[in-house]
Amino acid sequence: MLSEFDLISRYFTRPARSYIAQIALGVGDDCALLTPAAGTQIAISTDMLVEGRHFFPDAEPFTLGHKCLAVNLSDLAAMGARPLAFTLALALPAAREEWLGPFSAGLLALADSHHCELIGGDTTKGPLNICITVFGETLPGQALRRDAAQAGDDIWVSGTLGDARLALAGYRNELTDQLVMDAEQHALAATRMHQPTPRVALGIALRGIARAAIDISDGLIGDLGHILARSGVGATLAVDSLPAGPVLTQQTQAIRRHFTLAGGDDYELCFTAPADRRDAVFAAGQAAATAVTRIGSIDAASGLRLHDADGAVLNLQLTSFDHFRST
Amino acid sequence: MLSEFDLISRYFTRPARSYIAQIALGVGDDCALLTPAAGTQIAISTDMLVEGRHFFPDAEPFTLGHKCLAVNLSDLAAMGARPLAFTLALALPAAREEWLGPFSAGLLALADSHHCELIGGDTTKGPLNICITVFGETLPGQALRRDAAQAGDDIWVSGTLGDARLALAGYRNELTDQLVMDAEQHALAATRMHQPTPRVALGIALRGIARAAIDISDGLIGDLGHILARSGVGATLAVDSLPAGPVLTQQTQAIRRHFTLAGGDDYELCFTAPADRRDAVFAAGQAAATAVTRIGSIDAASGLRLHDADGAVLNLQLTSFDHFRST
Repeated sequence: MLSEFDLISRYFTRPARSYIAQIALGVGDDCALLTPAAGTQIAISTDMLVEGRHFFPDAEPFTLGHKCLAVNLSDLAAMGARPLAFTLALALPAAREEWLGPFSAGLLALADSHHCELIGGDTTKGPLNICITVFGETLPGQALRRDAAQAGDDIWVSGTLGDARLALAGYRNELTDQLVMDAEQHALAATRMHQPTPRVALGIALRGIARAAIDISDGLIGDLGHILARSGVGATLAVDSLPAGPVLTQQTQAIRRHFTLAGGDDYELCFTAPADRRDAVFAAGQAAATAVTRIGSIDAASGLRLHDADGAVLNLQLTSFDHFRST
Repeated sequence: MLSEFDLISRYFTRPARSYIAQIALGVGDDCALLTPAAGTQIAISTDMLVEGRHFFPDAEPFTLGHKCLAVNLSDLAAMGARPLAFTLALALPAAREEWLGPFSAGLLALADSHHCELIGGDTTKGPLNICITVFGETLPGQALRRDAAQAGDDIWVSGTLGDARLALAGYRNELTDQLVMDAEQHALAATRMHQPTPRVALGIALRGIARAAIDISDGLIGDLGHILARSGVGATLAVDSLPAGPVLTQQTQAIRRHFTLAGGDDYELCFTAPADRRDAVFAAGQAAATAVTRIGSIDAASGLRLHDADGAVLNLQLTSFDHFRST
């Protein structure tokens, strides 16, 4: 059995990366030390993932390591912040090397690809729980906040929506009479669920272009709802223009609408930008190699209106994900 | 049943405190934003507390809220950093108001007394798990690191040791033939276990005076061992000069030695300072209204030597706490 200190030194301690000048002290002391560049702001976000709630008990540890950091990097992306570093707190039923090896490999591979360094954390025995706090760098006044949407803004979404939710439906044997999905399609959709891509480059490219932004973790309408509430505005969405994932595109219109609007685990960015910045938004998408789709507009009147392809009002019964509702 | 958003807004969202100019954006967006003062460093630490491991399943929620933040502030104290802010990630079996009310009250009372603001976090359903990441401010070159002890340094400890471990022995009915402790004494010792006092003022007062420092959470010899390992030195401790807590003082010498050396949950500072700075160390203790006791010295030769009151070598079999050893 590994001791706590062997565990940290074997799986989570590496020579400090030379590309991050801001990290004055990493793993191994009471605190890590960051030296922010003059005039910069530190963006901070925390996400906790619990076995049986956010991932299956038999989740593959490499992709789980990826996902735990990805959902945190997605929060930085939604602020337009550049990743700097993160801490990892880990409760484990036992220190099993066959789990820790691939978990740390998946986690650190994504960290390296974003030049984001593990600078500290905590390990303890307990029901499997993974808590990451991530630090990014942004410039004062340039962060993409939830409270900055204005009436007349376009609403945009990155990438595609709904394939992660479709994969979950497959695992749960939901909608078996309506879903048509073979094993290969399910595997493709499952990649979206297990290995989301945080839209970090897009978030940075949208600085100075987008007004408000949020990442979509609990479903588009719920997360867009946070922008509307905090900005004191409403919105109209063109439901049939929502970009469905490659597997979801092959499903019925009812399922497409449901899973793009109220899926979950998408980790795409939903953002608003002035209507006269459409070219700049497309250019940012191109620079970040990330598709961007215009899906509606911000209204002065509160509330969310859903329109179909003909502009007719749709009345769909959908709710967003709540972590304390039973599912 | 409270929803996730009701829970956050009712118990964990407050108007931003005006005393922390560095917090540009608090609870409620994808990230919080800190604006560090020019030339400062950010100290960061994460601790995770798990039910049944770090606290009893029936732990009183007010003191639990206090303790979860206290153990994190203790890490800042051990770097000589001034608390700024923290994030809270909380997994709860259910959103029970009779638990959340006193838990948040205990947590935020300690936060307020240190001008440390809650700036973000996460809540989810799951086995009770509390993960806090705390942020402090220090100046480059002034942080009290574990790797800075030098041969000839005095070794010091703040406050008193062992009462928290004594309280645990009482709860566990350990050593019943050797321990003499009535209910009142146990209640006094238990206060040290449930409501530790982070030595924040002392840590700040020791800037420029102490060399290395650590906070004692897993027992003095284990935690001092981290200073020795990272500084490449050894030490000699005068075991009978260790300051025992008021309840522990009344126990046998064997129990006193055991629980001061290898107790746990003390949250005192162990630090080293040059022998010619003794007056400065006492003055720092006085300024911080915290007792400081000289307990030994750093040696060039590696290893830890324990001496009794007559300077004779003691050969005690003690081990530090390991979170992955069964207890």
